Amino acid sequence: MSIINLQLLLTGNELINGDVIDTNSAYIAKQIKEIGIDVTRRVTLADNLMGLVNEIRVMSQQADILIINGGLGPTSDDLTSEALAIAANLPLKENTKAIIHLQQWAKNRSVTLDKANLKQALLPEHCHIIHNKTGSAVGIHIQLNNCDVFCTPGVPSELKIMLNEEIIPALQDKLPKQEFLHTTRLQTFGIGESKLQMLMDKHFYNLPKNIDIGYRAHSPTVELKLTTHTKAALQLKEEWIIKIKQRLNDHILGEIKGDDLTLPECVFNQLLEKKLTMTTAESCTGGLIASQITELPGASQVFEAGYVTYSNEMKSKMLSVPYLTLENQGAVSQETVIAMAKGALKYSQADIAIAVSGIAGPTGGTVEKPTGSVWIAYGDNLNMNTQHFIIKGNRRYFQRTVTARCLDLVRRFLLKSEHIPHYLK
Amino acid sequence: MSIINLQLLLTGNELINGDVIDTNSAYIAKQIKEIGIDVTRRVTLADNLMGLVNEIRVMSQQADILIINGGLGPTSDDLTSEALAIAANLPLKENTKAIIHLQQWAKNRSVTLDKANLKQALLPEHCHIIHNKTGSAVGIHIQLNNCDVFCTPGVPSELKIMLNEEIIPALQDKLPKQEFLHTTRLQTFGIGESKLQMLMDKHFYNLPKNIDIGYRAHSPTVELKLTTHTKAALQLKEEWIIKIKQRLNDHILGEIKGDDLTLPECVFNQLLEKKLTMTTAESCTGGLIASQITELPGASQVFEAGYVTYSNEMKSKMLSVPYLTLENQGAVSQETVIAMAKGALKYSQADIAIAVSGIAGPTGGTVEKPTGSVWIAYGDNLNMNTQHFIIKGNRRYFQRTVTARCLDLVRRFLLKSEHIPHYLK
Repeated sequence: MSIINLQLLLTGNELINGDVIDTNSAYIAKQIKEIGIDVTRRVTLADNLMGLVNEIRVMSQQADILIINGGLGPTSDDLTSEALAIAANLPLKENTKAIIHLQQWAKNRSVTLDKANLKQALLPEHCHIIHNKTGSAVGIHIQLNNCDVFCTPGVPSELKIMLNEEIIPALQDKLPKQEFLHTTRLQTFGIGESKLQMLMDKHFYNLPKNIDIGYRAHSPTVELKLTTHTKAALQLKEEWIIKIKQRLNDHILGEIKGDDLTLPECVFNQLLEKKLTMTTAESCTGGLIASQITELPGASQVFEAGYVTYSNEMKSKMLSVPYLTLENQGAVSQETVIAMAKGALKYSQADIAIAVSGIAGPTGGTVEKPTGSVWIAYGDNLNMNTQHFIIKGNRRYFQRTVTARCLDLVRRFLLKSEHIPHYLK
Repeated sequence: MSIINLQLLLTGNELINGDVIDTNSAYIAKQIKEIGIDVTRRVTLADNLMGLVNEIRVMSQQADILIINGGLGPTSDDLTSEALAIAANLPLKENTKAIIHLQQWAKNRSVTLDKANLKQALLPEHCHIIHNKTGSAVGIHIQLNNCDVFCTPGVPSELKIMLNEEIIPALQDKLPKQEFLHTTRLQTFGIGESKLQMLMDKHFYNLPKNIDIGYRAHSPTVELKLTTHTKAALQLKEEWIIKIKQRLNDHILGEIKGDDLTLPECVFNQLLEKKLTMTTAESCTGGLIASQITELPGASQVFEAGYVTYSNEMKSKMLSVPYLTLENQGAVSQETVIAMAKGALKYSQADIAIAVSGIAGPTGGTVEKPTGSVWIAYGDNLNMNTQHFIIKGNRRYFQRTVTARCLDLVRRFLLKSEHIPHYLK
């Protein structure tokens, strides 16, 4: 954690009543994090003058930096400038630089300034204004209770430019030079969040204090985050990551470089690399596996055909599963999924097949095959593997979990992994 | 504005650092609004014990109702229960009811409780627990500084059930008795939120003042909400609803009675009522339509087979689309989707087919058939219809929108609707 206390104050009825989902504060937090500062606290308020005044007073006493977002617009419910003036005991004055900005803005848009626009130039006396490249609202910067207060517009595109081009450079100048931050994000699948933490606590209790560890579940995957705040610990972190990778082995899908790293992406990348194609024969997942693969750009390079065979008759007709197998072993059986996979391979001419049959529920379970039972076959013409397990949970959870495990088993097959995944132990 | 001061406290490093966009607080605000209470203030905090303790103390002094969200999980950064105990000067005790809940939860999932799980039963002494239907974390209810404090899980699906089934009924009991509220929720599809609002403003500008109108977009549907606060206006509201239904005709999917009313549900219900079965022949949607239908319990009554024919070769092999059609007209053409639909009807023996072929992008577009082009065929053996349109947006948006429109067109076909949907005008 950084030693700087940075807090956010967001204002807007639409944010508090849920009409608008707040994405600005996540954006601000991520950008601020890049220079090593964490947001410690965030308050969201309705448009209420005295409520804002009180909040600004209290927050400026607590924080080193306060970023206020929203309430700089021309309408009567835009109260930030007025609230800031009251909180700081400053008169509201027409700001000459803000007037010039508004005139320029109006000229660029070929509009005339109205009374509502001119309200945007009424600012606390002697404040610094922050340039707004695209919108009419200038930002405001003042010192209050030894805290740097920055007021920013609620329009996301205007906020982004102002934050990145004006506020972050200003904050960087204030930072002690030694601040440093390096994070490695490992994506995992197959061990639940609390199990993963226990496992890590058990095997890595001696992780050095200057390496922070964090967890983030994003069903069906769990992210493991390792952070150092000093350059000296960088080499050390790399060494520990090697140990962690050895311990978690193929439960690690890879390092997250961008937004996310998903199971379908891992399978897709493996297929692409090995120049292989895949087909799906789905009963209980009803097309979900195929749809997750085909959601990826370029899916046609690895995927040509998928079969959704929901009834017994269609398993026979579309994939040549023998009637006798269905009758004697049932639709949810090892023999059936093998026949489904082989049929799919034969008819699609794909290299790899995944076939799945199970009881999604809520009805259809029996004593021998309870709701949640599932059989999976996966492999190629030379090497067909099967797995059986029971997933407890509602229908949606069942289908998503089965799909994830199917993709994980194919991924492990493509990697020629010899480790047994946690969920099969 | 309501006279009740309800505040929200959200906890989680992932919320404050921007890794997760907070949608829970918008959900809570909207649900709470339904019973006439506005959220006045919301605070979001990192996982920090003393920070939480202070915030709970201050907020419980200000508010009549405080809903805390998050921090009830099994890991060491889940601190809500402990913070609440400290703030209320209560010891943390193993709660017998919570233990029983955890044991039941573990039994349902066939897992064994570990130490991390058992931490979830350490609660402030004498607190009331709130039942969690799906997850391991029970909710907590205590009185603190004359404020009702409710602690809820951060997992959205668990929060939703707990809020709607436990907390809102409890709050309703506390509301002054003269408060009356009756809401009708109409689910719509095919008109965007702002277009719908403009349309309503234009045709229903004279809606009586004692009927409130609200909109809630939940892609791909938009909910239209009509509320009265007096019994006297109830009859009046019903009369206006009839007029609104006439104006919006088949853009209205129906009245929302439970959580939601989705397009797949509407199609499923129609098929069930008419004792018909459906099949899908999907190219650009890659199994998404089939997976949305088979996500519904009882899908096997209306769905036996789906075909994911991603390549031209598979369109021919699996659905007998003539090679000449593919060569001369291309895969994204009226002729191809008709042949796909007819092939799917023939091989699956289903009553109704939907076939779709398009260019999901980002590559594959041409001048004649730009990215986003799509052809759909839908109908039965006697009556096969087609539609063509272009969807602008990324791949994911394209696939979800095409799937929604496919389902809507089948729904209209089953209803024998003669109205032209807004998106085809």
